[in-house]
Amino acid sequence: MGFRLADLAEQLGARLIAGEGGADAEAAGDIEICGIANPDRAGPAQLTFVASKSYAAALARTRAAAALITEDLIEQCPVHRLVLADPYLGYARLTTLFARPKPPAGVHPSAVVDAAAMLGAGVHVGPHASIGAGARLGDGVVIGANSCIGEEVTIGADSVLCANVSLYSGVQIGARCLLHAGVVVGSDGFGFAPTAEGFLKIHQLGRVIIGDEVEIGANTCIDRGALDDTRIGAGVKLDNLVHIAHNCEIGDHSAITGQCGMAGSARLGKGCSMGGQSGLAGHIRVADHVQIGGQTRITKSIDRPGTYVSGTGFSEASQWRKNAVRFDRLNDLFKRVERLEADQAGQNAGKNGGKMKPANRQQ
Amino acid sequence: MGFRLADLAEQLGARLIAGEGGADAEAAGDIEICGIANPDRAGPAQLTFVASKSYAAALARTRAAAALITEDLIEQCPVHRLVLADPYLGYARLTTLFARPKPPAGVHPSAVVDAAAMLGAGVHVGPHASIGAGARLGDGVVIGANSCIGEEVTIGADSVLCANVSLYSGVQIGARCLLHAGVVVGSDGFGFAPTAEGFLKIHQLGRVIIGDEVEIGANTCIDRGALDDTRIGAGVKLDNLVHIAHNCEIGDHSAITGQCGMAGSARLGKGCSMGGQSGLAGHIRVADHVQIGGQTRITKSIDRPGTYVSGTGFSEASQWRKNAVRFDRLNDLFKRVERLEADQAGQNAGKNGGKMKPANRQQ
Amino acid sequence: MGFRLADLAEQLGARLIAGEGGADAEAAGDIEICGIANPDRAGPAQLTFVASKSYAAALARTRAAAALITEDLIEQCPVHRLVLADPYLGYARLTTLFARPKPPAGVHPSAVVDAAAMLGAGVHVGPHASIGAGARLGDGVVIGANSCIGEEVTIGADSVLCANVSLYSGVQIGARCLLHAGVVVGSDGFGFAPTAEGFLKIHQLGRVIIGDEVEIGANTCIDRGALDDTRIGAGVKLDNLVHIAHNCEIGDHSAITGQCGMAGSARLGKGCSMGGQSGLAGHIRVADHVQIGGQTRITKSIDRPGTYVSGTGFSEASQWRKNAVRFDRLNDLFKRVERLEADQAGQNAGKNGGKMKPANRQQ
Repeated sequence: MGFRLADLAEQLGARLIAGEGGADAEAAGDIEICGIANPDRAGPAQLTFVASKSYAAALARTRAAAALITEDLIEQCPVHRLVLADPYLGYARLTTLFARPKPPAGVHPSAVVDAAAMLGAGVHVGPHASIGAGARLGDGVVIGANSCIGEEVTIGADSVLCANVSLYSGVQIGARCLLHAGVVVGSDGFGFAPTAEGFLKIHQLGRVIIGDEVEIGANTCIDRGALDDTRIGAGVKLDNLVHIAHNCEIGDHSAITGQCGMAGSARLGKGCSMGGQSGLAGHIRVADHVQIGGQTRITKSIDRPGTYVSGTGFSEASQWRKNAVRFDRLNDLFKRVERLEADQAGQNAGKNGGKMKPANRQQ
Repeated sequence: MGFRLADLAEQLGARLIAGEGGADAEAAGDIEICGIANPDRAGPAQLTFVASKSYAAALARTRAAAALITEDLIEQCPVHRLVLADPYLGYARLTTLFARPKPPAGVHPSAVVDAAAMLGAGVHVGPHASIGAGARLGDGVVIGANSCIGEEVTIGADSVLCANVSLYSGVQIGARCLLHAGVVVGSDGFGFAPTAEGFLKIHQLGRVIIGDEVEIGANTCIDRGALDDTRIGAGVKLDNLVHIAHNCEIGDHSAITGQCGMAGSARLGKGCSMGGQSGLAGHIRVADHVQIGGQTRITKSIDRPGTYVSGTGFSEASQWRKNAVRFDRLNDLFKRVERLEADQAGQNAGKNGGKMKPANRQQ
Repeated sequence: MGFRLADLAEQLGARLIAGEGGADAEAAGDIEICGIANPDRAGPAQLTFVASKSYAAALARTRAAAALITEDLIEQCPVHRLVLADPYLGYARLTTLFARPKPPAGVHPSAVVDAAAMLGAGVHVGPHASIGAGARLGDGVVIGANSCIGEEVTIGADSVLCANVSLYSGVQIGARCLLHAGVVVGSDGFGFAPTAEGFLKIHQLGRVIIGDEVEIGANTCIDRGALDDTRIGAGVKLDNLVHIAHNCEIGDHSAITGQCGMAGSARLGKGCSMGGQSGLAGHIRVADHVQIGGQTRITKSIDRPGTYVSGTGFSEASQWRKNAVRFDRLNDLFKRVERLEADQAGQNAGKNGGKMKPANRQQ
């Protein structure tokens, strides 16, 4: 279950420097590492890492076997060191070694797999899962317990679906994706034509197309397109409880955190990020490399990279209330200040013998 | 799989006008239509439509077999035309023809149906679904794979539940409803009595009563009432990830978009709409025909139709920050302006020989 | 199915005072109570209660068998009275009697229970549930239909999981918890290291540890820790569609209402509350006994108890727009007012023969 410290160093391209206490480099290299932990929690069979200066104090006290550190922390590190340029990236790489293992190949006897579904080599289908007619699962795909795969769905090789996932018919998932429990992909977009008798349903005829290496958080929902398709680019990461409406498009390698929403036909560029609980209005287009703050409402297209925020800061309720009630008179206040400025300008003009001072107002 | 163009025209009450290129009306009427697509994506076996002027340019380039258009676009349409007053409504109607087919009647052998449940004619129960004692399912009801129907639930004729839906005991669903994957109806409301030892659970004894033709989006949750019932009117549409707390009431034909929330005992009128991520506070009452903006917080009852919004616009973060910090001094600023006005008024009174000018302040 | 009124009085420590109309106390005590309802809906076999003055009018008209009331309402109560100090608490206690019964012990034949799972006495496992290897379920635990319990999960005695719940491997749930339908616990935190080729997944190696008597609302998601654990204290109540990110900590007896979110490593103290749709930024720490308003964004740590709010009030859209556009010029406005004040001060200084008046500006 463990890994030799020297092997981990080699795998990361890190320099192994044996710690104090008489240990030589060879003995240090033979130490077996069974896990990773933060400096203050790591035990003698674990590796730790320091990715920011704020953990340097904890490093001094660590009981870990060894630490991933940058050059400048060598002296302060009381244990064996694995020195590399980016300890955070090193840590990220090593997590693979200790991740939960993939379940074994095979279809659980309680699963229901349509005779017209095609399963690649090494596919795992968990208990009570169901796979519809015409579905095609690539090699190494994992379908978690109780997940429902609709007709004509395609899933690329080595993608993993956790428990209770629902994929509607025709959905396309790329390779090496990870869909967490409760995810829904391909549900109907919110499309209704108003009539005198109420809403008339617009059946949603598009699909959802998801690229490779996309991760989708628990209970996140992605609607199918109305006519065209909803599209999620390669490498996109969606957190939990995110809502992606019909015909949205998300560019490659964008990251959308928990409880964000994109309204219908909104398009987010590549390499963007959205802070928690933020939302994009329908039919807008956001450029590449835009960062959106948490709980921010984006109501218009953004055509330049940058960081965008809406809303106010928070404050203690009694203070907040005094200021918030004033917000409703803000337009009035601007007009009152304009009048004061005009009055002031008039008085100054009088004092200065009619020579006007430049207006105070900044445009 | 296709439909004659002439038949579609008749169904919609549209006028078929054969396009240029020598085709006569009879030959045009015999064309087989196999789908609907937007003007720029439609192929020669598909119908397209133009519901707004912004698509008129795309119409000129369309390769569709025919287009649903208004009278004024006849000349600009390069393909066969189906002329009618409301192409969007026409499109909505035709989507029914191309919608996913209803699954066949029958109970999957892996489903668990209590002996004391009553199933109407033509009911479909998917794999690994379960139906509790005393549940009554109307004719033509569809229960998706892995859906759980609690005891004493009633579901009206032709309602469709997708995969992984959970209905708690006693829930009542109307006819012709559509519940998307992951929907939960009848979970406990958030009711606790505070005591010195922590919260004491208030068991939730009410039900959820849902009218006819209600659509509920993926992973949306509707809590049962504490004592009275939670009530959703006929024709109501709820989008994905919506939260409806205990004892809420929603009037007929209201539409609530993604990630909105209604706190306990809030009441929304008929024909209302809520933009994405907006919320109603508990125990408030919103009149009929009220539109609520996206990410808007409604903290008090609204008794007049209209559109209501809270929050601020968004801006680039460095600009936003400068303004947002000022929000916390807004009340001060109003007082400062009042003092300036008083001062100004005093000076003007002095200049005018004691005659007061009207105050600048607007009430 | 019913309970003697005298027995209920005894159970609550309430004083039974027979109503008008000739009934004596003994006859009143023998009345059978079959349910609880609000004053205006209660029938002659039901008990009602008045917890706030606003229901006193409804009490005068009630058709209930009896009412839980405070001393001061005895005269106004037209039916038998159960007099006690806190009728709301009394009502909360009595709801237990009418709650849905626990399902009987036993494992449904369609459930899949790993041979290496350990089930306590009286455990119920519903249809199509699955229990992984090494899972340990305490006495009286209920696993709802279609729920998936991962490997090495532990669940304390008498905890109840409703339908379609997903627990990832290693999750620990305390005793007497209630997890509603669609809940996900132990999904991966949103952890990725940015690289030139896109995001590198940081496998999430921590667990989720949940205390006793925790209730978790429908479709709520709680991520596992990255290295350390995500921790939910005893008696915590989470409403529907809440998002708890990796490494969050929630102190005992805090209550988080619908659609709230906590970003990674945020810590909420004991006895706190969060109003609907509010959010905590990552890595912040909120003190004990803090109340956070609905739709409020908390971006910094809070070290003092109190109530905190962000955002603005709502108003009719045309009014709102006029004020909201001004928000973007708020910093300018402050500068303009400063200039006016300086000018005013200068003029006053002139009038006063060079003697400066105190500045108008409040700090």
